[in-house]
Amino acid sequence: MPHNLFYAQSGGVTAVINASAQGVIETARNHPNTIRHVYAGLNGILGALREELIDTSSLSDTQVKALGHTPAGAFGSCRYKLKNLESHRADYERLMAVFAAHDIRYFLYNGGGDSQDTAQKVSQLSASMGYPMQCIGIPKTIDNDLAITDNSPGFGSVAKYVAIAIMEASMDVASMAASSTKVFVLEVMGRHTGWIAAASGLAQQNPDAAPHIILLPEVTFKPQAFLTKVKTSVEKHGYCAIVASEGIKDEAGQFLAEAGGQDAFGHAQLGGVAPQLCAMIKTQLGYKYHHAIADYLQRSARHIASQTDVEQAYALGQAAVEAILDGKDAIMPTIERVSNNPYRWTIGEAPLADVSNIEKALPKAFISEDGMHITQAAKDYLAPLVQGEAYPPYQHGLPDYAHYQHQLVRAKLKTWEAK
Amino acid sequence: MPHNLFYAQSGGVTAVINASAQGVIETARNHPNTIRHVYAGLNGILGALREELIDTSSLSDTQVKALGHTPAGAFGSCRYKLKNLESHRADYERLMAVFAAHDIRYFLYNGGGDSQDTAQKVSQLSASMGYPMQCIGIPKTIDNDLAITDNSPGFGSVAKYVAIAIMEASMDVASMAASSTKVFVLEVMGRHTGWIAAASGLAQQNPDAAPHIILLPEVTFKPQAFLTKVKTSVEKHGYCAIVASEGIKDEAGQFLAEAGGQDAFGHAQLGGVAPQLCAMIKTQLGYKYHHAIADYLQRSARHIASQTDVEQAYALGQAAVEAILDGKDAIMPTIERVSNNPYRWTIGEAPLADVSNIEKALPKAFISEDGMHITQAAKDYLAPLVQGEAYPPYQHGLPDYAHYQHQLVRAKLKTWEAK
Repeated sequence: MPHNLFYAQSGGVTAVINASAQGVIETARNHPNTIRHVYAGLNGILGALREELIDTSSLSDTQVKALGHTPAGAFGSCRYKLKNLESHRADYERLMAVFAAHDIRYFLYNGGGDSQDTAQKVSQLSASMGYPMQCIGIPKTIDNDLAITDNSPGFGSVAKYVAIAIMEASMDVASMAASSTKVFVLEVMGRHTGWIAAASGLAQQNPDAAPHIILLPEVTFKPQAFLTKVKTSVEKHGYCAIVASEGIKDEAGQFLAEAGGQDAFGHAQLGGVAPQLCAMIKTQLGYKYHHAIADYLQRSARHIASQTDVEQAYALGQAAVEAILDGKDAIMPTIERVSNNPYRWTIGEAPLADVSNIEKALPKAFISEDGMHITQAAKDYLAPLVQGEAYPPYQHGLPDYAHYQHQLVRAKLKTWEAK
Repeated sequence: MPHNLFYAQSGGVTAVINASAQGVIETARNHPNTIRHVYAGLNGILGALREELIDTSSLSDTQVKALGHTPAGAFGSCRYKLKNLESHRADYERLMAVFAAHDIRYFLYNGGGDSQDTAQKVSQLSASMGYPMQCIGIPKTIDNDLAITDNSPGFGSVAKYVAIAIMEASMDVASMAASSTKVFVLEVMGRHTGWIAAASGLAQQNPDAAPHIILLPEVTFKPQAFLTKVKTSVEKHGYCAIVASEGIKDEAGQFLAEAGGQDAFGHAQLGGVAPQLCAMIKTQLGYKYHHAIADYLQRSARHIASQTDVEQAYALGQAAVEAILDGKDAIMPTIERVSNNPYRWTIGEAPLADVSNIEKALPKAFISEDGMHITQAAKDYLAPLVQGEAYPPYQHGLPDYAHYQHQLVRAKLKTWEAK
């Protein structure tokens, strides 16, 4: 007898997380004897806790297909981490009550390390309660810091975005540098790991090309070495293009983004890392500078998503449902790299216990000796992930992204409030 | 007998200015009886003053064609305004000396209002000196503030970029707003006019859609009305997406970007308008916010250039050479809009005297009654300019932009120094 499947998107969204949703829904629709409905959580796991379940059965095949070219979280995501099983048992029991009330026996959680941890706890709890439940994680994180999987969906598209962004902006600066801006800083995401900043290094197609400096959270920021390299770059190339992770820290372990002064309202300066670096360059070197802060633009840029990334996001959603069909529990399908050139990959799997709450930093071998760039090994790893342009359809000059009117399943339980 | 043609790029570069260069060079190559060589100024007009002339004859047809998909200034641009003819006659005389030394009788200047002014002065001076010279302007400005021409190359692509950027980032915010970021601010260029910010309004495909607020330099910034609208938007839509021109001013006429506090080094805060608005929102409304600063990314984003923009940039370069062939002087070819739907345009022309140093602000009819959005009339004007996707070729997942090794014409005069 078929049962229902619950799918939720978790944490920061990406340009391709909906491609995983497409993979889940399309694969589930092919197996009606096992899976009756795919219920998506409205705003992620909150949708399960609040019993706000979107019945994706009402979506046409065309609407489901459109998920594949639509960025952000089509069903809503959330930042809500289910805490310790012992101290916050009520949350978990509420989840199980909702699942039981709606005959949900399959739990698919699409997120990063925290989410894999939650999926594992749900698996443990259901086992201990004797409730038949299969819990499968689907990797997703622009930060690329999930363990075991070779890479995570969402990252390849951000990597492509930042490499193109610094390539284009640097060409702009190069053509103006003789009489104007000489230093350009692009601030990118990555609070704990430098994968995103590192990816910008793909733009450097010869030793003179931009970016000239990449600042990573894995390397302590040393102002003097940095300024020296900026000066050398301007003297040698006429300009200097810099990509900085938002998470770089000084020798005291303090985030540079928090090291600033105060704004007009007496709050700590909010401008982030890029303005700090620019101020330093202006004061110490006197160069004219500009900076960009990519922020959400980088992770929502479906218009320039990596084809590889889209395909892998879909494949992992599909693999998660296939794991259900195979009777598996407490695992996460992974990307396994078979070869670099030509790039070949396959789907593997990892126990949730092995990926939960583990943060994969940039390996030392990927960081150049001076700590301010990436190595060839890093480029070899990164290059395949940005391959291919998965352009969305356009209408009237703008992407024709899908928008959905969500139909909620009728609630059966009492309302729930976060404690 | 054929003579040489001098072409220079001026001021801030764009995603499509090289398409104008392509139009110039390809058209000139078809008329060898009139035009011998196209010399491009290395770093714009500085190349003429310094007698640093790039001989584009050495470029293969393939290399010239590649200009059409390559952003920024392939020959270098500069921020160097030739000043008053009377007080800075030496600069102009130097120009004429270089032109005479290299048999340059055609002067094509690709830039904004200042550049058209320079082209006109060169025309006047050559006439007064009896030197046979034809001076033609080619419009270019992302700011879209050039007079007479319906629009200017460079703008359509920025317009497309900002509309897509706010569309994508807003979808991201919308999917996270239930538990996280509720306000997003995208800061865009436009120090004096709001054309770029206005273009973001194209993303708003229904009254509830983002952007919810557009802040324009043409409208005095009123904090209370702004905050009220932010609050209303969050309450109604769950979030608020804002696009702000870097050039917005308060009631005292001060740039908001300069109204901040001090950074760690005691300098005026450098973060720009977006951090100021975010600080205000945080303090007064308490919402979680994020901001992005597009900076050079917006004007160099050839990867998502408007096909209309690329075609017009090319056509205006071509028209400038045709004006030379027709014996014209002191004019700038323009875009004339024939109809909106279907969009049809043709090439017209304007006397340089009529476009020099005139700044075309956003018309009142394009600004909504509350001053914080655009009207349907604005959308009708803007929509055709972003039509079509002129994707560049890719290699290994990144745009295959052209890079040139410039061959300079042998200098004949003494070196020149700016005074």
